[in-house]
Amino acid sequence: MSEQIVLPAPADFHVHVRQGKMCELVTPQVAKGGVRTAYVMPNLVPPLTSTDAVLSYKAELERLDPSIQWLMTLYLHPDVNPEEIRKAAKAGISGVKSYPRGVTTNSNSGIEDYGVYYPVFKAMEEEGLVLNLHGEVPSDPEKNISILNAEVHFLTHLKKLAHDFPKLRIVLEHATTSNAIEAVSSLPSNVACSITAHHLYLTIDEVAPQPHHFCKPLAKEPKDRKALQDAIKSGNPKFFLGSDSAPHPLGSKVPGVQEDGSVSACAAGVYTSPILIPLVATLLESFGALDKLEGFVSTHGRKFYGVPAIEGKELTLRRTGNAEGEGIVRGTLKGEGVEVLPFWTGKKLEWEIVN
Amino acid sequence: MSEQIVLPAPADFHVHVRQGKMCELVTPQVAKGGVRTAYVMPNLVPPLTSTDAVLSYKAELERLDPSIQWLMTLYLHPDVNPEEIRKAAKAGISGVKSYPRGVTTNSNSGIEDYGVYYPVFKAMEEEGLVLNLHGEVPSDPEKNISILNAEVHFLTHLKKLAHDFPKLRIVLEHATTSNAIEAVSSLPSNVACSITAHHLYLTIDEVAPQPHHFCKPLAKEPKDRKALQDAIKSGNPKFFLGSDSAPHPLGSKVPGVQEDGSVSACAAGVYTSPILIPLVATLLESFGALDKLEGFVSTHGRKFYGVPAIEGKELTLRRTGNAEGEGIVRGTLKGEGVEVLPFWTGKKLEWEIVN
Repeated sequence: MSEQIVLPAPADFHVHVRQGKMCELVTPQVAKGGVRTAYVMPNLVPPLTSTDAVLSYKAELERLDPSIQWLMTLYLHPDVNPEEIRKAAKAGISGVKSYPRGVTTNSNSGIEDYGVYYPVFKAMEEEGLVLNLHGEVPSDPEKNISILNAEVHFLTHLKKLAHDFPKLRIVLEHATTSNAIEAVSSLPSNVACSITAHHLYLTIDEVAPQPHHFCKPLAKEPKDRKALQDAIKSGNPKFFLGSDSAPHPLGSKVPGVQEDGSVSACAAGVYTSPILIPLVATLLESFGALDKLEGFVSTHGRKFYGVPAIEGKELTLRRTGNAEGEGIVRGTLKGEGVEVLPFWTGKKLEWEIVN
Repeated sequence: MSEQIVLPAPADFHVHVRQGKMCELVTPQVAKGGVRTAYVMPNLVPPLTSTDAVLSYKAELERLDPSIQWLMTLYLHPDVNPEEIRKAAKAGISGVKSYPRGVTTNSNSGIEDYGVYYPVFKAMEEEGLVLNLHGEVPSDPEKNISILNAEVHFLTHLKKLAHDFPKLRIVLEHATTSNAIEAVSSLPSNVACSITAHHLYLTIDEVAPQPHHFCKPLAKEPKDRKALQDAIKSGNPKFFLGSDSAPHPLGSKVPGVQEDGSVSACAAGVYTSPILIPLVATLLESFGALDKLEGFVSTHGRKFYGVPAIEGKELTLRRTGNAEGEGIVRGTLKGEGVEVLPFWTGKKLEWEIVN
């Protein structure tokens, strides 16, 4: 078993770094987790629906951590028209993120119908922007659609978009089901798929009793987790890391009784940034895919996006020791008036970053 | 729409009243929820595996609330042999509860294989004791068994037991799936099924973000919830109320970061006792089954168990008013060093008990 691993500059192709005090706390954690290139989600309040707003956010992130290559996205919204797409392309924005309305954090401005966006997608295809899909349909009890099958029901939309825009690069984000893996595998090479770290570990059994494991899409059955693991083991370059690291203040993750007597619900999101690459190494090793680590975190995503590895930004990992407490992820991160709990707290990482 | 309902003495054929300070807090709430006869679960610490332990527990419950008819159960366990069954029958114990090992609260002493208990089941059949089944198999990732399909996988055991003991009365407790409803419907009249209040309302969408809604069996898909509702609407006497009201201290329901850096999980259980019959009336009305309320809460279960309604113990419900705050369930119940949050907190009950 190798005791040291050198990776070309790792990239996380799906990360939330939020805004305000939370942004100040979590932005520097991206590099601490071993990531050199970060593809940033636009679901702020208000959502980033203009090139100017995205560039202003990018400047803020560069101020907070100039060491990271920040790749930026627009939020798909009626304000985003073909003209805005061309402006975004000129400004170096990489992609556009689509949220079905109401399915996850800050998605109230999300889309209800893809048809109206066909001119936008056409412009994206021409300008080389990537379409990033949160691949879930909204729940609908009358149709037996719930957070369990919301992703499977979305796959018809994915297939139609892939068919209608054969030159548009499309990423199905944070796949969680064997059906999604099969769909992406069977579609042409313009369609790829990001996979989070936490969905390689969680199933519904670990999520239901633990709000800190609750996220959208929900982790599903053991067979689904195995399909994600097998996709990575296969070495298929369609599958790469997008952590969906999504910090929420501790109080938003743990329900409490409100003053009016109602009970708050738990925000959707799992926060992995501070430990990301060591965690991915630990997980891949656990299911016999450590030899696929470089492809999954450094190579496949960069190739799909056309973002070459940065010279001199290699990351070296070494195995953690066996002394008591070594490699154990401990407690919350605290910023000014904000506290967030990383995934894997209390558990051991088998790999650590060599500083 | 009727504005007052008089029900023959309601019965809850599955209730947890715990032990110690929690027992002191929650036992009087059973009557407050409108229940006159309560069928009590034996999963204490240690489990109630002897007639003497059950009788001692019953005496404690009678001391805490002599107004309730307490029906008692033994915990299926290697200590329970045919001789103990005959002793239990003479002592007036009503049934035996089986917990598959490790699937829910205090089930570590649960059974792994029904075959070894066939002599016990034979004695129960002869003595007229009821077998109460927690109908889930333990999770097994290798076989893709999770808390989502644990009940469906259990149904083969239910069918085999029903076949092998045609005169043994068997209750599949707290059914949550359309498959379970179909299985019970198709089995002979010695097999019945309890249904909780909360599973008539919850689906996975309401459970995943809310630890206070987490219970075993997990609430499943909208189609499953509809199957439970339809079973009640059908008026089939195989289906009756067993609330599985299961109080946990507030701190056990809400995960926290422990001193050692690990994160606690959430205990399984939804607590409905204090509002049970008004809640069931509210829910049945919501899906057009108010005319089946009497059968579901007062008649069907009593007939199956052979426990006639108590004269003079009718319960009268009236519709709650529309003034602000009327009918709203508010906040936690507090006892000595223990606090518990009822289901439906912050929501309105459409019916209330006439004192």
